[in-house]
Amino acid sequence: MTQLPHTAKPETPLLDRVTWPADLKAIDDRQMPQLAKELRAEMVDAVSVTGGHLGAGLGVVELTLAIHKVFDTPEDRLIFDVGHQCYPHKIITGRRDRIRTLRQEDGLSGFTKRDESVYDPFGAAHSSTSISAGLGMAVASDLTGKKRHVIAVIGDGALSAGMAYEALNNAGALDARLIVILNDNDMSIAPPTGAMSAYLARLASGRTYMGIREFGKKLTAYLGRSVDRAITRAVEHARGYVTGGTLFEEMGFYHIGPIDGHSFDHLLPVLRNVRDNGRGPVLIHVVTQKGKGYPPAEAAADKYHGVSKFDVITGTQAKAKPNAPSYTNVFADALIGEARQDDRIVAVTAAMPDGTGLGKFAKEFAARTFDVGIAEQHAVTFAAGMATEGLKPFVAIYSTFLQRGYDQVVHDVAIQNLPVRFAIDRAGFVGADGATHAGSFDTTYLATLPGFVVMAPADEAELKHMVRTAAAYDDGPIAFRYPRGEGVGIEMPERGEILPIGKGRIVKQGTKVALLSFGTRLADALLAAEDLDAAGLSTTVADARFCKPLDEAMIAELAATHEVLITIEEGAVGGFGSHVLHYLSNEGLLDNGLKVRSLVMPDIFMDQAKPEIMVAKAGLDRKGIVDTVFRALEQHGVELPAKA
Amino acid sequence: MTQLPHTAKPETPLLDRVTWPADLKAIDDRQMPQLAKELRAEMVDAVSVTGGHLGAGLGVVELTLAIHKVFDTPEDRLIFDVGHQCYPHKIITGRRDRIRTLRQEDGLSGFTKRDESVYDPFGAAHSSTSISAGLGMAVASDLTGKKRHVIAVIGDGALSAGMAYEALNNAGALDARLIVILNDNDMSIAPPTGAMSAYLARLASGRTYMGIREFGKKLTAYLGRSVDRAITRAVEHARGYVTGGTLFEEMGFYHIGPIDGHSFDHLLPVLRNVRDNGRGPVLIHVVTQKGKGYPPAEAAADKYHGVSKFDVITGTQAKAKPNAPSYTNVFADALIGEARQDDRIVAVTAAMPDGTGLGKFAKEFAARTFDVGIAEQHAVTFAAGMATEGLKPFVAIYSTFLQRGYDQVVHDVAIQNLPVRFAIDRAGFVGADGATHAGSFDTTYLATLPGFVVMAPADEAELKHMVRTAAAYDDGPIAFRYPRGEGVGIEMPERGEILPIGKGRIVKQGTKVALLSFGTRLADALLAAEDLDAAGLSTTVADARFCKPLDEAMIAELAATHEVLITIEEGAVGGFGSHVLHYLSNEGLLDNGLKVRSLVMPDIFMDQAKPEIMVAKAGLDRKGIVDTVFRALEQHGVELPAKA
Repeated sequence: MTQLPHTAKPETPLLDRVTWPADLKAIDDRQMPQLAKELRAEMVDAVSVTGGHLGAGLGVVELTLAIHKVFDTPEDRLIFDVGHQCYPHKIITGRRDRIRTLRQEDGLSGFTKRDESVYDPFGAAHSSTSISAGLGMAVASDLTGKKRHVIAVIGDGALSAGMAYEALNNAGALDARLIVILNDNDMSIAPPTGAMSAYLARLASGRTYMGIREFGKKLTAYLGRSVDRAITRAVEHARGYVTGGTLFEEMGFYHIGPIDGHSFDHLLPVLRNVRDNGRGPVLIHVVTQKGKGYPPAEAAADKYHGVSKFDVITGTQAKAKPNAPSYTNVFADALIGEARQDDRIVAVTAAMPDGTGLGKFAKEFAARTFDVGIAEQHAVTFAAGMATEGLKPFVAIYSTFLQRGYDQVVHDVAIQNLPVRFAIDRAGFVGADGATHAGSFDTTYLATLPGFVVMAPADEAELKHMVRTAAAYDDGPIAFRYPRGEGVGIEMPERGEILPIGKGRIVKQGTKVALLSFGTRLADALLAAEDLDAAGLSTTVADARFCKPLDEAMIAELAATHEVLITIEEGAVGGFGSHVLHYLSNEGLLDNGLKVRSLVMPDIFMDQAKPEIMVAKAGLDRKGIVDTVFRALEQHGVELPAKA
Repeated sequence: MTQLPHTAKPETPLLDRVTWPADLKAIDDRQMPQLAKELRAEMVDAVSVTGGHLGAGLGVVELTLAIHKVFDTPEDRLIFDVGHQCYPHKIITGRRDRIRTLRQEDGLSGFTKRDESVYDPFGAAHSSTSISAGLGMAVASDLTGKKRHVIAVIGDGALSAGMAYEALNNAGALDARLIVILNDNDMSIAPPTGAMSAYLARLASGRTYMGIREFGKKLTAYLGRSVDRAITRAVEHARGYVTGGTLFEEMGFYHIGPIDGHSFDHLLPVLRNVRDNGRGPVLIHVVTQKGKGYPPAEAAADKYHGVSKFDVITGTQAKAKPNAPSYTNVFADALIGEARQDDRIVAVTAAMPDGTGLGKFAKEFAARTFDVGIAEQHAVTFAAGMATEGLKPFVAIYSTFLQRGYDQVVHDVAIQNLPVRFAIDRAGFVGADGATHAGSFDTTYLATLPGFVVMAPADEAELKHMVRTAAAYDDGPIAFRYPRGEGVGIEMPERGEILPIGKGRIVKQGTKVALLSFGTRLADALLAAEDLDAAGLSTTVADARFCKPLDEAMIAELAATHEVLITIEEGAVGGFGSHVLHYLSNEGLLDNGLKVRSLVMPDIFMDQAKPEIMVAKAGLDRKGIVDTVFRALEQHGVELPAKA
């Protein structure tokens, strides 16, 4: 890590008086800008220490303060969509003393989390869930006779997801008391895509500006009485108010805005009026600036979406020196290499061009790269459509986000046996982002599908082989999963090889214990084998490469020639180990006393920590593997040599 | 079955000349209404024999003919969303000779299907996929330099799904050459819900009618030259044309319509103009009538959405006399009973009130029933929001459709450990609807989630227990899966019992073979046990009730005291059997030569047939179970008594 200069903690006399939202009642409206300034400084300082999401939180400092000042949280429910903008919220909801533990083991989550605080009524991390959850709460409030407000804060990027539309559509029809605040900051991770984004830009640019008189009439109709002077003043300062004929109105929402999300003069009167007089679903369109108030982040919003530790004064981010290329980069380079050979290769991302490496791919193949927005369902079926026409689509996606396209994977890809390639990044433990981003279930939910080829590379050279294999494979769907982070530093081939489908490889031959790894746990399996060999237990290490189709011949041979067989994978139960057990048992290969054990991710949602710690806790590391072998033998009274 | 009177096949001299779409070129425009009439008669006659979807197909007879006449299918791509309206399309694309095999074993699929015909470029069954697939094809067409047209026909109900919105949003931005035909017929399965539906009704009612002069200008701008006389005539007859300022325009589409979907005078000129002159994405809003042209279906559209065999003259549908109540009904009655005791119980459906039994529930608890539209993602998270407020939501949903809410199940329900109840209908084989509707994967994709309780009732009395158990269970998510069709006719308790979580039951005690069933395969397991007992193999039959948490004590005991253990479930690999194997192997309970086998649904997507035939093919019936036991023993040279 680059050494960062020490900077003094910011002075925050006003913020020091605000531990809880209730403390805001004592702060005069005119002092709010100063409070915002201090909250911003505190947040920048905290993230400079922990790393995390910076720009999103900076953009909603005033909005967060205004909501907590006007509404009665936690009795009123405040939901942040995605949740990566919630750091200012955490600071003023009793968690300031732990704010420098953000995203660390045993520290605060980087997202909202119900376990953490009553001020987090709904946990988030995946995008576009807040309107649905908020509508559920609003309906519950109505049914139980509570008179509470429910406020969902959602970014413009999140509106490209179908889920948000489904919720708007339902809310508009239910006429529930729901306040949606559209935080229009162009701060989705990737540049905003899609027609909705263009539409919002047109709205925000004032092209649909409505006269003050007309606006007054519309707003009075909604708020139920003559609009008071404070809100009129707000209107005079705002860029324009629109309440009629917009897309959101057509969906059944009252629509107020766009208003300036950094001006308390605009935020406070509008929120107070909606609180006191609003009826039915309302959408308040608030325009904010990415990274607001921290010059380095304002200047280069994309670089400050998620940051590592950084120098507060200069904005310089600390960078770890990688020992090996990241899997993401290896994938991108390999795909670029294949795409140079085959112009049918196209790439699809759902708003993650950089996270998936497709940004790099797009630099060379712009016309063959499709960023469809936060729209995983569409991404999958769009790719399926391309596959029907003979293109070779690679859908590059995080394991956890592919969950959102699962039905499309089943119904549009697998059942039709279309050769869509899934490059599944962030498979296994992901570290600081915690349980919501863990890639735990993909092997299980994909390998259960007939006809699906499911691979996992043991290292970055294997990943290169699998990219080529997937490009060459045209008989049906094929997926390969690989982890976050760096490879093992192995020598890389110029170009990948086409692997035989459904064939694993023996990496090291032994006689007594067989370690059968699926994916990058192979490195630990090899280390475990050293320990086992040293303890007199001659150990074979095999790299399965394929969960589906299984290399049945290899597995049968391992079963027939060893006393102990351990499967190892960084995935949940129901995946590789289950397929091996299913095969072995149904073939009768377990009937003769083979000691088989399967190591999988534990059956809990594990909180954030460094990935290597998570792997160790899961018992999927060198020690965990060795212990499992020893336990299997000891259970049967096998005389063991001294443990290594 | 009620005996149906024999009716003569309709006379269809014009239709007899149309085997393929190319044959339509020889039919004069003025003869098209007569052709439509004959096609309609042929379709009614065919469905009266096979049963199937009636109203949807009747509504698109003219539209189907017009598209095939104007466009050059299959070179131009025509995609029907959902696909249940495709019977007229099948009749004129070379499949008329097999139209009376619809939905039968080895017959035509009830949906579009790529394997079946080059005129089905994309298979469907689940809703709202057509725009995504079509956009993929359109982009591929552009990339490969083909000049083909891509037409997606989508119903208004399907527009409530987020996936359709994601696709519109992306298409509007990509400016691809895609023709979306919105078939506005209010013919979604349930009454249309949501703001979009209300919006379309306003459009269709002509409230947004635009003057002919204005319309001409807009259309000329889009079509690129002066609009010809034919289209002007069409306009004069249509209820109104809108091309500006609509929601679809805001999404980046040119919007033409609404036009009369039963008038060739409207359809043909509009389609020809779009074909010859259109650029970029266009949405043609076509208004059609449910069940058009068949009086019984026009009069009661909901009853003729999906029909059994019926009398063409009277419309009377044949009804099989059920031997026992359906699982769906048992669920509905049980939930109504519980809801009378506990006013926190609420119910959520995604546009399937009748299919799930919630229509019945709604009759008594209208305010506590939520039909959110075709919006499974939202349904799940909406329920999660309600659960945070102490309500007890039951999401009643088909297994296959829950796939579409999978990420929400993981991220919003399981990770937050919220007590959302999932009543999963149509689990296992579903018969005539085939592979796209099979409920194969739910146990696998749910039981892999930490903290999830996953149950399956063995019969309808057990289902009643599980409804009560789920209502009483407040510690986290809980699901129960049950099949399509009737129960076994067992005596029903007045009210269900609260089952102990994670406890199975021994139904019959034996000594040598243990059959461990999860779900309704129990009946066959009991029959198999009779055969095995008769063959001298004393057989225990256990009902697991829970896949998660497993009844480890019971399973360990079965493993310790039997020679053979067979798990049986109507679900894919990775589910119950895998959890049992995982437990047994990791505890060392397989190390001593227990012969364990797991019977699951086969690793193929099985085409439609009668459910009992599908179960037999899968080896999950009485014979399949017995054979598996015999094979397991024979494999080891066990001397068997004569087989029963």
